[in-house]
Amino acid sequence: MIKEKIEQASGILKEEGIDLWLTFVRESEVTGDPSLDLILGANCTWHSAFMIPADGKAVAIVGSLDETRIRETGGYEVIGYTKSIKEPLVEQLTRFAPRSIAVNFSENTCLADGLSHGLYLSLMRYLEGTPFASRLVSSENIISKLRGRKSPEEIRRIHAAVELAEEIFAAVSLIIKPGLTEKDVASYILKEVDRRGVETAWERELCPSVFTGPESAGAHAGPTDRVIEKGHVLNIDFGVKVEGYVSDLQRTWYFRKAGEKKAPAEVLKAFETIRDSIALAAEKIRPGMEGGAVDTLARTYITDRGYKEFPHALGHQVGRHAHDGAGLLCPEWERYGNLPHLKIEEGQVYTLEPRIVIPGYGVATMEEIVVVHSDGGEFLSQPQRELYLV
Amino acid sequence: MIKEKIEQASGILKEEGIDLWLTFVRESEVTGDPSLDLILGANCTWHSAFMIPADGKAVAIVGSLDETRIRETGGYEVIGYTKSIKEPLVEQLTRFAPRSIAVNFSENTCLADGLSHGLYLSLMRYLEGTPFASRLVSSENIISKLRGRKSPEEIRRIHAAVELAEEIFAAVSLIIKPGLTEKDVASYILKEVDRRGVETAWERELCPSVFTGPESAGAHAGPTDRVIEKGHVLNIDFGVKVEGYVSDLQRTWYFRKAGEKKAPAEVLKAFETIRDSIALAAEKIRPGMEGGAVDTLARTYITDRGYKEFPHALGHQVGRHAHDGAGLLCPEWERYGNLPHLKIEEGQVYTLEPRIVIPGYGVATMEEIVVVHSDGGEFLSQPQRELYLV
Repeated sequence: MIKEKIEQASGILKEEGIDLWLTFVRESEVTGDPSLDLILGANCTWHSAFMIPADGKAVAIVGSLDETRIRETGGYEVIGYTKSIKEPLVEQLTRFAPRSIAVNFSENTCLADGLSHGLYLSLMRYLEGTPFASRLVSSENIISKLRGRKSPEEIRRIHAAVELAEEIFAAVSLIIKPGLTEKDVASYILKEVDRRGVETAWERELCPSVFTGPESAGAHAGPTDRVIEKGHVLNIDFGVKVEGYVSDLQRTWYFRKAGEKKAPAEVLKAFETIRDSIALAAEKIRPGMEGGAVDTLARTYITDRGYKEFPHALGHQVGRHAHDGAGLLCPEWERYGNLPHLKIEEGQVYTLEPRIVIPGYGVATMEEIVVVHSDGGEFLSQPQRELYLV
Repeated sequence: MIKEKIEQASGILKEEGIDLWLTFVRESEVTGDPSLDLILGANCTWHSAFMIPADGKAVAIVGSLDETRIRETGGYEVIGYTKSIKEPLVEQLTRFAPRSIAVNFSENTCLADGLSHGLYLSLMRYLEGTPFASRLVSSENIISKLRGRKSPEEIRRIHAAVELAEEIFAAVSLIIKPGLTEKDVASYILKEVDRRGVETAWERELCPSVFTGPESAGAHAGPTDRVIEKGHVLNIDFGVKVEGYVSDLQRTWYFRKAGEKKAPAEVLKAFETIRDSIALAAEKIRPGMEGGAVDTLARTYITDRGYKEFPHALGHQVGRHAHDGAGLLCPEWERYGNLPHLKIEEGQVYTLEPRIVIPGYGVATMEEIVVVHSDGGEFLSQPQRELYLV
């Protein structure tokens, strides 16, 4: 998969008109550059340089102790050094003769900001007196595209993470009931995660998030001692990481009161409105559309049915992180800057996660995952079709 | 423990004559600053500033969504913001009026290089037009001292990590025998690690390292399919992480040939030489000594007994990382730069790990851990007194 991503990176460099992408790191286990996971899949100790050109073979310059291990990753012609990286670095740059060199700094996104300031100073020191010091540009666009456009192997891994989370959701459905607390449900889920030897998709304190009943926080908080009661709507936000790639899903339950055969009409209507707004967004999403347009489709579908609009974006990309890549399906609100105008690309993977607050019951929300094809969104999750009844 | 370290940091700022230490981060789960573990113990999402003054109360400026969670860490007066960190940041700096501001960049050590270059550019943009932009200095010395001088709670955690590793070494002793491969032994150890719900002290591929017999790599390589044979000397390098702090120990075994009651004289002599050189270094180490002097003590003890000197430092600090802090017990070799001349400080925790190659048998090496007191080194590990015989 490393080779797939390196090839893809070369293509993106051509699109962006940049000659060389240089990832410069050291002791990457301690202060890692998030790009290393994509283009190397290993750690290195001394100053190391990973150079991917628009044309030609990628080259890695690493400390002699790391040489064999980095060669085994398979993507690079590897050059080892013992005393200082300066000489082989300048030598290779001279050979590539790039007119522009993208390096990993960005004020806008941390995923493209893996170069530490100390390393930047070292790099400038090494390039002093060469023509290259003045040719550095930000790799922001390269990394954003490279993270966004998923390769078949990346899709497979996200799908595996989705399936595993769905399996755990199914197990939860068998035990969830009034009388349990949010924390009980969360700790059951974490046991299922640990039993499978995987990690949660984000920090365990907030993954899963469990929200039951009408006065819960509803988002971005950990599970509490609140007890599930009959008449509650409950939702869980949860995902796992499989082979470095994550899932991020939400599911909604309703706990029937004595004598109720189904959920009250207002709960059902809210559930179905969410479900159908997700189906609409998945059907209409296309490469080339602005993210804001997809958000508007689902948002309008919901407000047209008399609900308040949800207070966040319709969806974000997933990949190595639960919030991955720059493109976002979000409204034109000031805090989103230019993000609603970024174009959707084929191979991007988005969540779709509108929500509706049902007064007196709780928060209903589903979160599904789609991959973007030329003819629409393909679900990687099995969308929740019916409200889960307990 | 966060409060302990913040107080300690204030004291170190006074020693260094620096008025304020500013740790500036965002999305710290993705691109973390290694200092956050020491002074916060939590993650934050938006631009966040942690300001520890030489005099006065520490202040944190964080996004409003993180405000409650960061307040709960207990070390800071917390200021939340919603639109931009610029205004509260400049306001607080104006209030502190520091003549010098240490920020986390360093060409020398990655542990003090947590500020990304993109964040540095943002910070400079926020400080534009204020007197503070020109007052930034490196926090290298502050972080090095802060990591080195362990608080009682930090010592307790390292000790717990040592005891757990020793417990696993004891379990290994019950099953290790000729016929097993290095990989068999490593996978047994990893099962014991997983069963206890802890992590290895460094990457699992190299932790444990297991080396058996005369032609093994001896260091810095993963376990292989090499089979343990009678007549082999075997060593294991291994540690675990407990509550964020690690151990790093080595132990040595000998596998008797048919008819042997004990190990051959040359194996025993090498083992005892290592053991006694470690005891000597632990006895003589004192605050104020240069690290190089302690290295020389053990090194000379070994060469005086007719052995070649070991090709690495006598010991390194441990803490949150298996290689932690700047001070090192190392010889005056060019590649160690000024490190052999750094002064040892009270409360630092060092490994002691000389080695001897025994031709025809393998590599004998122990690694023990001591904390430095005014009257010498106190072992946190239970030093290996006798060669383990199988």
